[in-house]
Amino acid sequence: MARMPHGDDALACAVLLRAPAIDRESLAAALRCAGGAANLVQANARERLAAGVPAAVDAYLRGPDGRPTVAEQRWLDHPRHHVLGSWQPEFPGLLQCTSDCPIALYVDGDLAALCQPQLAIVGSRKPTPPGAENAFQFAELLARRGLAITSGLALGIDTAAHRGALAAEGTTLAVVGGGIDVHYPRVNRRLAEEIACTGALVSEFALGAAPRPAHFPQRNRVIAGLSLGTLVVEAARRSGSLITARIACEQGREVFALPGSIHNPLARGCHELIKQGAKLTETVHDILSELNFSGFFAATTVARADAASPRSPAAGMDKDRKILLDALGFDPAGIDLLVVRTGLKPEAVSSIMLTLELEGYVQAAPGGCYSRVARSP
Amino acid sequence: MARMPHGDDALACAVLLRAPAIDRESLAAALRCAGGAANLVQANARERLAAGVPAAVDAYLRGPDGRPTVAEQRWLDHPRHHVLGSWQPEFPGLLQCTSDCPIALYVDGDLAALCQPQLAIVGSRKPTPPGAENAFQFAELLARRGLAITSGLALGIDTAAHRGALAAEGTTLAVVGGGIDVHYPRVNRRLAEEIACTGALVSEFALGAAPRPAHFPQRNRVIAGLSLGTLVVEAARRSGSLITARIACEQGREVFALPGSIHNPLARGCHELIKQGAKLTETVHDILSELNFSGFFAATTVARADAASPRSPAAGMDKDRKILLDALGFDPAGIDLLVVRTGLKPEAVSSIMLTLELEGYVQAAPGGCYSRVARSP
Repeated sequence: MARMPHGDDALACAVLLRAPAIDRESLAAALRCAGGAANLVQANARERLAAGVPAAVDAYLRGPDGRPTVAEQRWLDHPRHHVLGSWQPEFPGLLQCTSDCPIALYVDGDLAALCQPQLAIVGSRKPTPPGAENAFQFAELLARRGLAITSGLALGIDTAAHRGALAAEGTTLAVVGGGIDVHYPRVNRRLAEEIACTGALVSEFALGAAPRPAHFPQRNRVIAGLSLGTLVVEAARRSGSLITARIACEQGREVFALPGSIHNPLARGCHELIKQGAKLTETVHDILSELNFSGFFAATTVARADAASPRSPAAGMDKDRKILLDALGFDPAGIDLLVVRTGLKPEAVSSIMLTLELEGYVQAAPGGCYSRVARSP
Repeated sequence: MARMPHGDDALACAVLLRAPAIDRESLAAALRCAGGAANLVQANARERLAAGVPAAVDAYLRGPDGRPTVAEQRWLDHPRHHVLGSWQPEFPGLLQCTSDCPIALYVDGDLAALCQPQLAIVGSRKPTPPGAENAFQFAELLARRGLAITSGLALGIDTAAHRGALAAEGTTLAVVGGGIDVHYPRVNRRLAEEIACTGALVSEFALGAAPRPAHFPQRNRVIAGLSLGTLVVEAARRSGSLITARIACEQGREVFALPGSIHNPLARGCHELIKQGAKLTETVHDILSELNFSGFFAATTVARADAASPRSPAAGMDKDRKILLDALGFDPAGIDLLVVRTGLKPEAVSSIMLTLELEGYVQAAPGGCYSRVARSP
């Protein structure tokens, strides 16, 4: 089989992603065997047969649709536009090891974002206002801790999660259920552009593909597959978010769910998940500790920062922790008071106090206050 | 050892409940050996030694306090006033089989209530208004199903639970942390009287004993010990309600907890319990099904009703279910609409619809509606 230049792989992937009724497992095996999409697309029928290409795909490649369209060529002209094959080293490993992994992904944005540690935040398209706020706040705090936030660009919880991550100047990925060039929902067109600027917009559907309902379970597989875990913020019973959570669980990933009032119908899906073993989540620490993430982040950040600056963020955090412990004294104090006393930002105080609580230096006192533990660890 | 008439046992129990620093296990063994409290109190020192009475109790019984007081005699004159020894057949079996069981209980009210199947409902003294409403509603619905509701007569959740059971004309038991004749909290004096009229007020503390903080963990043991399970409605972390739940768990009883908003500090105790394995509870059905109670209740009620009436309540329930299924038709309908269509009470409709959902005849539809399942079981 003639070997083709690697650069053609993106266009060949685009062609394959248009193939009807793909048996992904067989095609992925054939792609590995052929050493990429370009080789496979440009091979002759005998070579394709030898590589194990499914007959339907072979027929498709020999038909009128089996070559790149002008739209695909033009789309790929943009430097931040990619079609990434699942056999390529830049392809996210967590997704690669799931069953029914896409053979390739359209990516608009930063390819490196796909390999960042991610948490999926999903939920209802019509959340309650506190539900949307929770999604925003969890995304903001987790993004600040270095987790990328992955969601589906839908209205409601998805939108709030993406916006929370953007507010923290963190990374966010949106996996969409239509072509990457199709703006759906329309009202999120600007949001999609912001996400592509700093993170990544992701799709496994052909350019121009309408966001059909049948696409969404597959889109949800990608969201769950990219992520270390999935947080469900508000969801009705029998909703798409629960499908994402079920997939995450099947893929051996963590599932987190926020509890809520028994009178909130959108808490029912979360409660169902908790009954089935999802981790009841009250704070970002429930997530970070379960993913054992703060350690991971601290280690990588220190390594990066050490090269740039003599004072590492870890040492900085230690300093802030000491300032906060001193400011706390031995009488209970709330976050607001500690902000005044230390001049630190409320988010920083809140986050560090949670760490200190987790580590046994302080304890929660009535009225949202913290008090110092007499005999610290 | 001279055997005394059984009637003196109550007074002798009152004397023993006043004994300081009781080793309950040893004393209970001695009571079983002596065949009751009266025999033991009136025995001589040699006989008491032979029965295994702890030395401290023997010394106490020989001292000036070792005989019934006038107050005890007067209190027991009332026909609904009892002091029930743990070896007596009327003593509740569920409590009897717990470790550190009281040697006797003061009871003001109906002795039979102690042996009814009970659910403990406990929680914060200062609940949120929805929290108190939840306690009331769960107690009301469960009492209507034939579960007695046991709590601690405290302000807040306890009060709401007792009142809910009374509103359902069900049975409720209040276990107090002071003397049964001590009105604490004062504002609940009238409530205590109502409870004693139809259910039972219970204490293991001497007449006139102040409700000291040290009494409450022991009081909580009795609440949990009397009950098939304990429902925690709203509770802060490190609160007495969590102690009751922990005891219930140690005693092998079910623990139920209502989830709530992550921003409600009084949901935190409940969430902690759920994380530790308590059953997340959204409806009374979560409790009834876990306790496998509806079956128990149906069986006993049918048996009783069969003797009194040719139409059993179970048949009546079947009738209401059929009426509701007919009223539902095959379009989704909410509880309100079903109330209008059938003339049944909202609570009855709500409860029966939940049963029908549990049994697979109907399913929850958006907007709080139910729709009929095409192929019912």
